[in-house]
Amino acid sequence: MADEKTFTKEFRKSLENKRIGSNFLGVLNDIKRRPSDAAKELKISTEEIENIINGKIKLSSKIISKATEIWPVNARDFYIMHDDCPNGLKMMRSEDSIKSSRVMHRSGKPYYEYRDTAMSSVGPFRPEWIEELCVVDNDQPNNSQVQWNNGHFMHQFTYFIGDVNFYYIDENGEKKVAVMNTGDSNYITPFTPHSFATRKGAKKNGLILALTYGNNLSGDSQHELSSMGKKLGKEFALDFSSKEIASVSLIKFHRNNASLTLNELSKRTNMDIEKLKDFENGKIPTYSEYAILAKCLNVNIRDLLPYDKISNKVIVQFYKNTKKWFYPENIKKYELVELANTNALPHSKALEINVLNENDKTLDLKIGLHQYGYNISDTDVSISYESDDGLKADIIKPGDSFYMKPFVEHNFRGKGKLLILRISGKITGEPQRELSLIGKKNMQRVINESTQWFDVKGRN
Amino acid sequence: MADEKTFTKEFRKSLENKRIGSNFLGVLNDIKRRPSDAAKELKISTEEIENIINGKIKLSSKIISKATEIWPVNARDFYIMHDDCPNGLKMMRSEDSIKSSRVMHRSGKPYYEYRDTAMSSVGPFRPEWIEELCVVDNDQPNNSQVQWNNGHFMHQFTYFIGDVNFYYIDENGEKKVAVMNTGDSNYITPFTPHSFATRKGAKKNGLILALTYGNNLSGDSQHELSSMGKKLGKEFALDFSSKEIASVSLIKFHRNNASLTLNELSKRTNMDIEKLKDFENGKIPTYSEYAILAKCLNVNIRDLLPYDKISNKVIVQFYKNTKKWFYPENIKKYELVELANTNALPHSKALEINVLNENDKTLDLKIGLHQYGYNISDTDVSISYESDDGLKADIIKPGDSFYMKPFVEHNFRGKGKLLILRISGKITGEPQRELSLIGKKNMQRVINESTQWFDVKGRN
Repeated sequence: MADEKTFTKEFRKSLENKRIGSNFLGVLNDIKRRPSDAAKELKISTEEIENIINGKIKLSSKIISKATEIWPVNARDFYIMHDDCPNGLKMMRSEDSIKSSRVMHRSGKPYYEYRDTAMSSVGPFRPEWIEELCVVDNDQPNNSQVQWNNGHFMHQFTYFIGDVNFYYIDENGEKKVAVMNTGDSNYITPFTPHSFATRKGAKKNGLILALTYGNNLSGDSQHELSSMGKKLGKEFALDFSSKEIASVSLIKFHRNNASLTLNELSKRTNMDIEKLKDFENGKIPTYSEYAILAKCLNVNIRDLLPYDKISNKVIVQFYKNTKKWFYPENIKKYELVELANTNALPHSKALEINVLNENDKTLDLKIGLHQYGYNISDTDVSISYESDDGLKADIIKPGDSFYMKPFVEHNFRGKGKLLILRISGKITGEPQRELSLIGKKNMQRVINESTQWFDVKGRN
Repeated sequence: MADEKTFTKEFRKSLENKRIGSNFLGVLNDIKRRPSDAAKELKISTEEIENIINGKIKLSSKIISKATEIWPVNARDFYIMHDDCPNGLKMMRSEDSIKSSRVMHRSGKPYYEYRDTAMSSVGPFRPEWIEELCVVDNDQPNNSQVQWNNGHFMHQFTYFIGDVNFYYIDENGEKKVAVMNTGDSNYITPFTPHSFATRKGAKKNGLILALTYGNNLSGDSQHELSSMGKKLGKEFALDFSSKEIASVSLIKFHRNNASLTLNELSKRTNMDIEKLKDFENGKIPTYSEYAILAKCLNVNIRDLLPYDKISNKVIVQFYKNTKKWFYPENIKKYELVELANTNALPHSKALEINVLNENDKTLDLKIGLHQYGYNISDTDVSISYESDDGLKADIIKPGDSFYMKPFVEHNFRGKGKLLILRISGKITGEPQRELSLIGKKNMQRVINESTQWFDVKGRN
């Protein structure tokens, strides 16, 4: 067994070195350096470069550092994502979660107990189990026992267990409270100050599952914004304060990108300048007008469309108002319950899954988003899933949580209940559209560049 | 002067350390570690953590390495983008471009001379000046003198100078040739094999400006794809082979993300199951049908819309067919010429700018995209721009090139002609929409997180 594990670990390590090598080749290709050019400029041998590319030698931080000195590249370009979830599923047991316990004080008093739940280096979830140690004796939003936070960069989906008050600042800057119970859920926009507390009279302290995650703005986007500095960085936020104003902002943004005058756009669209001015003053174009504008701006209708509605920054979903349905079509293997969601995050889906079938072997779920799950019931749930290594199975015990990669085929069986959150990583959305245009045929080279951009020996 | 430069360099260095510290705080916030928790887990003092956060100590690769062992984070999360363009403009002189010359052989013969032009660590451009050393004696696509490449990961916009043949493989896998002359331009989709050669009888060898760049798929997206492995990675590419099929792929993708049955969607939309099936078999919904579908799937119409048209993978734009107009409105400071573009890249805009005004001091240009420029004329062009340090000016000589950050106010004056390419980085598009929803108010914390998610002393 020990041998097998070592082998696996070493095999994984060699795979990772190959990915580092492919990525390194990708960087060299992008700046049009052959291995011999790179060797000369980095002052190492061509053989060493080739061994790094082949994954035989691990790329050192010394070479990365030298590369960032001589080329307009960044250290982060050379560091790949470590895959801590090679089988597609990473479980965190309830016992391990307990070990990560940290008590957070506010104003000198214990306020929360935090515990980690399942996280992966390849998945964007940063989920915490949080016990509300502060017990409030009323439901007033300005209760002085309540200690507010500053809000945070990440989006938050919260699932409530027990008698918990949720405090938040609304759109008008006013303090609000929502009286939550088991099964209720919410969504909190980044930087919205909030707090949670147990209600007086509760049988035990309230719990929340606080599932935070970076969406499109984390990672590269945030790094780019930071590199732009304060003054220029601020310009990137368009005015989306209403649907009308968002439409104006987008049309103006695209017209300015192309340096098109109203005069030229009027010629191209065959629309009066006055009409174009109306669109830039808040009149929302019809669909066919959007189609003409998009064509003449060389963009797509979707690039000009604002969100269908400007959602609330905080969304409270009471369990009693949830939508429920059975899945799959015409077979009752699961009862699904739709939890808090917002059209501002079209790739975030929160569900309660009531598992209804105990034996069927079909892998009836395959979701193109990253998934997080937590067993919120008192009963074991079994999971079967298809990995690179073949079919695998595991038991999700009460209080266990898991991360699952997108597109893993799986099923849940038993009688328990899971909280599931599905979110996009860095591919879903516009990158996925770009990938879809490039097509499956070239996927291998997108995933791991294995080819220099030309053959030395020529190609006719 | 030397002192001033040193000061500036050290000042920049300290700013960079502050950005590294803010980023480090951001990572700790995301995994809900207070400095004291992080210190304990990393086995260093809380003081050291606080000094890293404040930018007083530089974060070491040793600490990063330890962090990746104990937390589900990646080394790349800790490395920020280095800003080599603090004033907003980075110039590469013609002389320096010449110094970067590399001659590329194919099949044993010199085929291209490559020279770098302006690149920045904060901008996505990877632009090369390329002389075509191979002279072909006919315009046949299967000329055996022509050596083809393998295509590359990056998108390519090309500007032609002189008598150059452009060879490419079209949608049907057939070799094609386009006979190009000065001012003609093209766009090449990633992984499309291509080649360039000078035509016989040319007064001198042909030149191209080959402006390559990663769009949405480079960086984080590619790293995530690579971490998913081959089998799962391939699933991300949806079928976009026609507009109808793309519409089907998107509707199915979103319905599956929510695990909605046709039955449940039919109830919500008040549409027959048969009608929904038609949409999933290639019938494109009307705009109002899209609106209903989007609402019931909790997404936006734009999330369901395919591209307005599936563009060609290679776009050839002859100069004689270009659109031209004056800019700004009703004043002839510039004549703009629209070069090759595609709706597949709504944030890529290529222009020739003929500078017509010599003296006006107005900064009449401010573009929300990264910009690359090259002086393609025989005449100097002056540039004025607003930097953090105040108004600056420079001369762009023939053969000089530059990178400019988004939203820098600037103008060009003189009588010369510039090639300009404007492209998105990692913010434009969906991240920018997310930023716009979060609003300008919170921008400072997005750019540089300076705040823990809570105050120890509490906050009522």
